[in-house]
Amino acid sequence: MLAGGIGGARFLRGLKDALDNREAPTTTGTEITVIGNTGDDITLFGLRVCPDLDTVMYTLGGGINEEQGWGRADETFSVRTELAAYGMQPQWFGLGDRDMATHIVRAQMMAAGYPLSAITEALCDRWQPGVRLLPMSDDRVETHVLVNEGEGQRAIHFQEWWVRHRAAIDAESIVSVGAADAKPAPGVLEAIDTADFVVLPPSNPVVSVGSILGVPGIREAVAATTVVGVSPIIGGAPVRGMADACLKAIGVRTSAEAVAAHYGADLLDGWLVDEADAHTRVPGIEVRALPLYMSTPETTEAIAAAALDLAGELSGVDTGRSTR
Amino acid sequence: MLAGGIGGARFLRGLKDALDNREAPTTTGTEITVIGNTGDDITLFGLRVCPDLDTVMYTLGGGINEEQGWGRADETFSVRTELAAYGMQPQWFGLGDRDMATHIVRAQMMAAGYPLSAITEALCDRWQPGVRLLPMSDDRVETHVLVNEGEGQRAIHFQEWWVRHRAAIDAESIVSVGAADAKPAPGVLEAIDTADFVVLPPSNPVVSVGSILGVPGIREAVAATTVVGVSPIIGGAPVRGMADACLKAIGVRTSAEAVAAHYGADLLDGWLVDEADAHTRVPGIEVRALPLYMSTPETTEAIAAAALDLAGELSGVDTGRSTR
Repeated sequence: MLAGGIGGARFLRGLKDALDNREAPTTTGTEITVIGNTGDDITLFGLRVCPDLDTVMYTLGGGINEEQGWGRADETFSVRTELAAYGMQPQWFGLGDRDMATHIVRAQMMAAGYPLSAITEALCDRWQPGVRLLPMSDDRVETHVLVNEGEGQRAIHFQEWWVRHRAAIDAESIVSVGAADAKPAPGVLEAIDTADFVVLPPSNPVVSVGSILGVPGIREAVAATTVVGVSPIIGGAPVRGMADACLKAIGVRTSAEAVAAHYGADLLDGWLVDEADAHTRVPGIEVRALPLYMSTPETTEAIAAAALDLAGELSGVDTGRSTR
Repeated sequence: MLAGGIGGARFLRGLKDALDNREAPTTTGTEITVIGNTGDDITLFGLRVCPDLDTVMYTLGGGINEEQGWGRADETFSVRTELAAYGMQPQWFGLGDRDMATHIVRAQMMAAGYPLSAITEALCDRWQPGVRLLPMSDDRVETHVLVNEGEGQRAIHFQEWWVRHRAAIDAESIVSVGAADAKPAPGVLEAIDTADFVVLPPSNPVVSVGSILGVPGIREAVAATTVVGVSPIIGGAPVRGMADACLKAIGVRTSAEAVAAHYGADLLDGWLVDEADAHTRVPGIEVRALPLYMSTPETTEAIAAAALDLAGELSGVDTGRSTR
């Protein structure tokens, strides 16, 4: 699976539940490798923050703030309050105290020379997410957004656009700085090459999945296997977040059909859309319609089960049957 | 004043109170410059911790944990708990969340190239301690302790000896690493040269005051002016802390008299001792006995007032009279 943050993490939990409720032995011992987006990583106060990797890790490891979908449960904000009292900038990124410890460990390991993939593995030693979590790259790839302001164009970090401006400033373009020279992290291409199939969760198709596919070599590897995606757009609006602002920036309509066409039939083999989008047709892509809101663990598991069914059908791999 | 941590900070508060309760105009506009010990500074989790500077800053700025004497009031420990959950070492140094923000700001400014003196000034912009707080040096000077363990001698950071081992391992010697090549921070020598007199609070004579005096140039400058000290030893025991373990390491008896003799008559002009030590005699040093426990703000102010009286007497500077 290629994963962004909240949507990817929640879908992933549904996927684990779905696999747990399948007939043995076909799915026994199934391993999930998650290739996480690192394009919205940011250095704040000298600490290295990897929002998407952490959201996956906390969600599967039982440490997530469930209501919010990101950050830690039972969080406190003493450090943030004090940094603001010192006038430290930026103040628009709300790092909690518990969460901050993760970024302190990561920054320490980075300073000691460890690559992000090794650091992620070390952090997961504690969280035991039950999946293999790999960053898309150990190289620094940062999503920047070109915005028009009074005086002219300016490139800002994705987080500044997303969190500070709530994507309310029009994006002229979205650039993946460093992507051209980045290499997939160790294990990424091998995981894709040996996978039975690849699942694209309802993550942001531009700055999450798109960012991962932008690392040279990953798109080609993914395209060579069976790929089933879950639409992040329902009835012309993003399921959550502000994916429409990102799609607009790259000239793609906010529709399940347009996103599938954007991924392309060379990449995507199957596409799950909501019943509201049952009319979706993209040549070369098998479309199935079902309720697509991940409103409860049960509905999320049902979507993941449908993805497994479709992936099994398209790949010829026996993905078993749900025992539910 | 040359200051260590808790004892220095509390005495300093008494000194400010004493100056506030003196006849105008002799003491109006009096400025206190505090030269703080940085020998027990330590880098932890990539953050730069300056315990003595912070204790002075928090104490005078109203942010101190009064019961404990160090650290922040209303502190939380989320980051520490989480770092321990990741297995991060060391776990024997208890950094609170609020306190940690100070070290994050400091580490950030250090990474940006600011010297510690400029950083301390920036931090004090928030805390407004009402004194000019200067680190003894912008250079890295670290107190290390040579200890005997099973296999042989080992040098450990002062904090490891003090906080982790509670000074319970015998110290073979105490070394001020980097002191020989250190320069006094900007303003330090000028402040001493232009001071009416210098006060030594009841701080640790070895690892606090001794560390400051060990920066080349500072001892000579201090010796050239009138110096009044307050004994940190009462009746053969340290007022607080484990100063006896430090004195033992440098071969000095734990007595008010021995500490005065250790400072030396070339440095020290006046010495305040407790009534229990009224017998103290050191050739060339004027000794006064009075109750020396800083148990309340009032008793602390009385000790500081006595220091002002003695300093005025010895230096010829009009230090006014207490209006209390």
